Order: sequence, then C-alpha cells, then structure tokens
Amino acid sequence: MSSTRIRELVVTPIAFGDPPLLNSNGVHEPLALRIILQLVLEDGTVGLGESPGGSDRLARLHAAAEVVVGMDVFDTTAVAAAIDAALLPTVPSSHERGWTTSAIEVACLDAQGRLLGRPVSDLLGGRVRDAVPFAAYLFYKWAEHPALDGRAAIGDDWGEALDPAGIVEQARLMQERYGFRSFKLKGGVFPPDEEIAAVRALAEAFPGQPLRLDPNVAWTVETSKYVTRELDGVLEYLEDPTKGIPGMAEVAKDSPMPLATNMCVIAWEHLKPAVEQDAIQVLLTDHHYWGGLRRTRELAAVCEAFGLALSMHSNSHLGISLAAMTHVAAAIPNLDHSCDTHYPWNSADDVIVPGVLELRDGAVRVPTGPGLGVELDHDKLGELHRRYVDSGVRSRDDTGYMQRFQPEYERLLPRW
Amino acid sequence: MSSTRIRELVVTPIAFGDPPLLNSNGVHEPLALRIILQLVLEDGTVGLGESPGGSDRLARLHAAAEVVVGMDVFDTTAVAAAIDAALLPTVPSSHERGWTTSAIEVACLDAQGRLLGRPVSDLLGGRVRDAVPFAAYLFYKWAEHPALDGRAAIGDDWGEALDPAGIVEQARLMQERYGFRSFKLKGGVFPPDEEIAAVRALAEAFPGQPLRLDPNVAWTVETSKYVTRELDGVLEYLEDPTKGIPGMAEVAKDSPMPLATNMCVIAWEHLKPAVEQDAIQVLLTDHHYWGGLRRTRELAAVCEAFGLALSMHSNSHLGISLAAMTHVAAAIPNLDHSCDTHYPWNSADDVIVPGVLELRDGAVRVPTGPGLGVELDHDKLGELHRRYVDSGVRSRDDTGYMQRFQPEYERLLPRW
Repeated sequence: MSSTRIRELVVTPIAFGDPPLLNSNGVHEPLALRIILQLVLEDGTVGLGESPGGSDRLARLHAAAEVVVGMDVFDTTAVAAAIDAALLPTVPSSHERGWTTSAIEVACLDAQGRLLGRPVSDLLGGRVRDAVPFAAYLFYKWAEHPALDGRAAIGDDWGEALDPAGIVEQARLMQERYGFRSFKLKGGVFPPDEEIAAVRALAEAFPGQPLRLDPNVAWTVETSKYVTRELDGVLEYLEDPTKGIPGMAEVAKDSPMPLATNMCVIAWEHLKPAVEQDAIQVLLTDHHYWGGLRRTRELAAVCEAFGLALSMHSNSHLGISLAAMTHVAAAIPNLDHSCDTHYPWNSADDVIVPGVLELRDGAVRVPTGPGLGVELDHDKLGELHRRYVDSGVRSRDDTGYMQRFQPEYERLLPRW
Repeated sequence: MSSTRIRELVVTPIAFGDPPLLNSNGVHEPLALRIILQLVLEDGTVGLGESPGGSDRLARLHAAAEVVVGMDVFDTTAVAAAIDAALLPTVPSSHERGWTTSAIEVACLDAQGRLLGRPVSDLLGGRVRDAVPFAAYLFYKWAEHPALDGRAAIGDDWGEALDPAGIVEQARLMQERYGFRSFKLKGGVFPPDEEIAAVRALAEAFPGQPLRLDPNVAWTVETSKYVTRELDGVLEYLEDPTKGIPGMAEVAKDSPMPLATNMCVIAWEHLKPAVEQDAIQVLLTDHHYWGGLRRTRELAAVCEAFGLALSMHSNSHLGISLAAMTHVAAAIPNLDHSCDTHYPWNSADDVIVPGVLELRDGAVRVPTGPGLGVELDHDKLGELHRRYVDSGVRSRDDTGYMQRFQPEYERLLPRW
C-alpha cells in the first residue's frame, strides 16, 4: 500500500496567451495565469491537476504541498481535510480554500485512475454520456491587444466584436470551428440595451439554439428586472445579473426565465440561504472551487434534491481542467445545460499532448484512457513557466489593464 | 474492458434466526428474510450484495438481474438508471425502487474493489476513521418464541425485557459482549410513560452515554410533545415519534431535543419539504434504500449543506450489509452519531466467513481487503436458502405473528 503514498507535489505556475476579452471588470490581459500540479506517488505514478493562477493561490498550493506528502492518494477526503485545516488560520474563506483542495483532489483522482487503469469518470460512477456538450463562450473583444510599453500589438484570428453584428460573426466562427449548438454571451460591458440587442441578434441568427447572458453583476436589481422582461422567451437562463443572494432573489421573484449563478453560491454554506430565498434556479458548478470532482457530484445531488438545474462555469483554462470538467460532467446525470468553456480562446497554448481532447460538434468526447486520459507536454510546460517567470505578471488585473488604455475607466458594480 | 462487464446476477433468498423483538407493529418472527446477491463479471470476479427480503423485493431483483447483464460494472450510475427505468412502470415509489438499485450498487462496488485491489472505502474518498461506532440496539422482547403449530419454543441467551429493569439488563449484556457506548431503545411497544421510565433507567445506569428512543410513529403529535418534555436533557435525539413530515415539524417546533427519522424522509424528493418545514434535525441514512454507497455519500453532503446531522438506520441484517455500512460510514466525515445495527441479534446465522467483522468496543474496524473485504460462506448460504425454501415464509409480518399469541392485537399507528 505504501506505493500509493504521495511523495511530492510539484507546483508550476505558468502564463499563456489570452485575447483581449471584455467583461464587467475590464479586459483580459495578454497573459493569463494558471498553475499546473504534478502529484508524484512513491511508486512514481504522476497525477495532474490545474488551478487558476496568482500569487495567493500559488502560495497556498505550496503550503498544501507540505501537508499532503506521505498521505495516501486514495484518502482524498482526508487529504482535503488536512489542507483545509492547514489553510484555515490564514484563509478564512471556505471558497478560497476550496480552490486549493480542489486542484489537489483532481490530481489525486488522476493518479488513482492511472494506478487502477481506469478513466476518472469510472471513479465517479461511470459516464452517462460519451461526449459532453459545451456552449460557445462569446465575448465582446477588441481586434487586438494594442501596442504597449514597446510591445507590439497582438492580434488573433477572431477579430473585433463590439456590437451585435460582431457578436453574431464571432458566434458563426465559433460554430464553424467547433460546432457549438448553444451560446453564452459575456455581458456587463455595454449598456444593457446594447447587450439585449446582441442577444436578439443571436436569437435571430441561431433560431432554437439555447442562449445565455452573463453580465457578472453589472446591474442593479431594477436593471436586471428590466432585462428579464426584455429577453423573456429568448434566454434559457440569465446568469448573475446582480450581486448577492438577496438581490438575485428579488430579481428571481418576477423573472420569466431561470436565474443562474457562479458568483453568489460558491461555497457549501451558500446553498441553504439560496434555496430558502429561491434566489437561483440554475447552479453553475465548478470543480475548481467546490472541492473537486467527487464534491461536484455531491453538489449535483444537492441540486437534484432541491430542484436546481445544473450547468458548469469556466475560467480561462487549459486541457487538464477541460479533461477534468469533461469527466465529471460525463458522470453527472442531471447536467441540464451545456457547460461553459474558455478553451477555444486559449487552446493554442495548451500544456497537454494534443490528440485526446477535441471540441467537435460542440462537444468533447470523454477520454477513455487511465486517469484524466491526458499527458503533460513537458516542453510546453517549461515554455509556459518561462513565460510566467519572464512576464512578471503575478495576478489577474482586468481593471488595471483596461486603465492603461482608458485612464478614466472605473470598476463599478453595479454599473447600470 | 469487456472483462468488467456483468455476466450474471445470482439472487438467493435466505431466512435466518431472529429473536422475538417487539416493536410498534408487533413482534419479529422466528425467521427473518434477506436476499444475497452475487454479481458475476465476465472475468469471473464476484461482487456481493445484501438486500432485505420478501417476495416483492425478490421479484424486483430478478427483474433487475435481466437488465444489468452486459453492462459495465464501473457504470454504476447507468446501471441504477437502467434498473430504475425498468421498474418504474410497476413500482411507482422511488423509495421502493431504491431498495433494488441500492443492493446492486453495493455488489458493483464490491466487484470494482476486488478488480482494483482496493477496499470499497477507497472508492468513496478513503476512510476518515479506522473503526465505525455503533449503538446497542435495545428491544423489548420475550424470553423466547413460544411453541407454535407443533414447533418447540425457541429461546436465546438475551432473556426477557419487558420493563425498565429488563432493558437495563439487556443493555448491560450488550455492553459486556460488544462494548457499546451508546444505546438506542426501540419503543412504541408500551405506553409512553413506561418507555420514558426505561430511558431514565438507562440514563441512570449509563451516565453520560448517548441514548435514543424510537417508537416508530406510535404516538400522536401531542403524545410526542409530552415525551420530548419528559425526556429533555436525557435523549441525544428522539426518532420518528409521529408520522409524516408535517407531524414531525409540529413536534420539532417545541422539542428541546433534535428529532431524527428514517421513516418520513426516505427518498430524495422528501429532502426539500423536510428542510423547508424544519421537520427533522437528524437524518438516519440507510444505503439500502438511498441508492447505495455513493448516493449515501451524496446524501451526507446534502445533510452537511442544510445543517442536518447524520446517523444510520438498520434493519435486521447480516455481514455483507454490515461491511457495506461500515465502509460508507468510514468514508463520511459528517457522521455525527454512532450507527444503528441489528447485528448482535442475527450474527450467529451470518453468511460470511467469520473473522473480518467484529463488534468490539462498540465499533467495527473497517475491512482493508479488496472490495467489501468479506467472503461468502457458500455452505451457510445453501443452508439459509434451504431454510427459506422450507419455511414458506415469504414476507415479514410482525403483526400477524403477534396475533397468533394475542388475537386481539391490532396494528394501530398512532396507538397513543
């Protein structure tokens, strides 16, 4: 049994290219941060994990790495509890601690699967679908990252999208390249009427295909109510129009469409008040902070028991996260909507060996190899780590980056 | 992968000895029924399961056996869904369907663990405790099954318990033989004041050791409220004093102690109304009807999220069930109370090879061998199956059996 003990957790911060995607906080910087985990067992088996980046999360993963050495890779509940206890004195938010425990749980399950010769989905009750549907994640965006501080402009092959026509064109490209059959627009960027017009243009261009809008709490309760009325019959759900459980509950009271969140229900202790206040009808789960893949299945059971529909949230991510999202989504019977993914925006810089994960017909086939079924590209990892080191970027700052080009820009939530 | 497909599900009804234990429905018959499952994979691996008996459950397991052949043993979610769909037209109760899917899920996990060389607890996130605490399950009982229809009387080494002194003596024996440190009295047999006296006698005899009382809905709301007042400060919780979620909620409003249930919240759709009405504070889970071991872990997450404490229910059972209960209880962090078990009443007739499961110091050490870690005693299985065939007993009938000795006895719930 000792060969299944954890010998080491190797923690590698990386930076990878990201287009100038707009949101209610500003605009994505040219480099996004992520952290790659290699959990090494006594017998040499390696399990992979991927976490959002940033100095705080990096420091917590380093602290967690000290905790997990010597523990058994099958004891994922005890591993999470040990990490949680170690972080508790300095990280009071259970949600924040969840980012750390989650990434390590995935690495443990990947290692388990490799040891056992079974895909991770089999450790979660087996897959109930062979491919997981994802939605096209549409963003208002600039044509390029403008030249800055001697750095040349950085373009991409998506082009500009700053109005309804641009969003529809982006959606067409997304569908052409990946076959998506549902669409999510990141809103909160322009005044609500402009975003309403964009959604209506999508509805006209893609009749019958599910649409969502996510302004990331850019609106007041009143504005949110206005948008729900305007988009009645057009959206499958409206995501995080306004801040907090009470505000969402106020909007939900009169809303003709379900409200979804990945912002006001982000830890286990938020579930009870959200249900009591009937604040949300769709939970966007995210294994990166709900405690990992097994906890995500447990969360799905909560949703089932309390009549919440289930969808899946995404941050900018690479292939290890996509594989994990795909395995757990494949195992959850009550996955009621296609999942979100930023993958098309970032996949060119992936750290995994190509060939296993492919977005086709708007879906990713569940890897069937042992563990997550993906392999690390060590050269690419070195390159992206080097980029991290050289860049000096240590935290995400969409607002500060926006202010480099629009000094008067303010982060204002709600803005409308 | 084809070697992990299910070749056959062998379903064996058995009957085993049971003492004359009294409850709100009557008295246990001399033979209790159970069904043993052997899930055989293409490669010959066998997973064990154990279900409550009776003709209805036997027929459903036979039907399920047809459904699961050819399915992959790792696809437990799909296996459960297929069985559920097959039973739905004739078994409208999701709770009743749950008995069938649950037993087969356990057999699948046992087979998985044997294939992988890991204990079942490892498939549930690993054990967070090495031994699982159980409570002494105290019953009012007769000294023997009276002679009947030419059959001689059947005694046992527990003796009679029909008053407080008898219950305290039984508790002492339970503690002496198994080291229990908590006690549950099955009530609903005598007028409430007599059972209150028995609980007080236990509290005096075992100071500081947790006590529970379970009258199995023998009481009205008013009587229940009276008992909660009388036993304030004496019980850790009161189990199912009265029938139904609204009735329990009415009692809970004024109750100085938590209320527990394994009767009014017995399927996933009962959770929301129970939480909304604050009807219970402790859920007694039971993997035999909540969908198996993974679903029990998910249920524990629901309890955690909604502030319900967790304990575990038991019916008359043998060692395969005890092993399954022990594995899942070992894997659940928020197991807040010792588990119930009838095992001391029935273990003499067990179908497993002795040596792995032992109730010592009031706890069972978690088996560490592959799967459930227990082996079937095929000779004993044959003997108990033969007893089933010969006995002609095909369903549990505590009331009818009581009426053989007390023709005026009526099943009356509530009785007081």
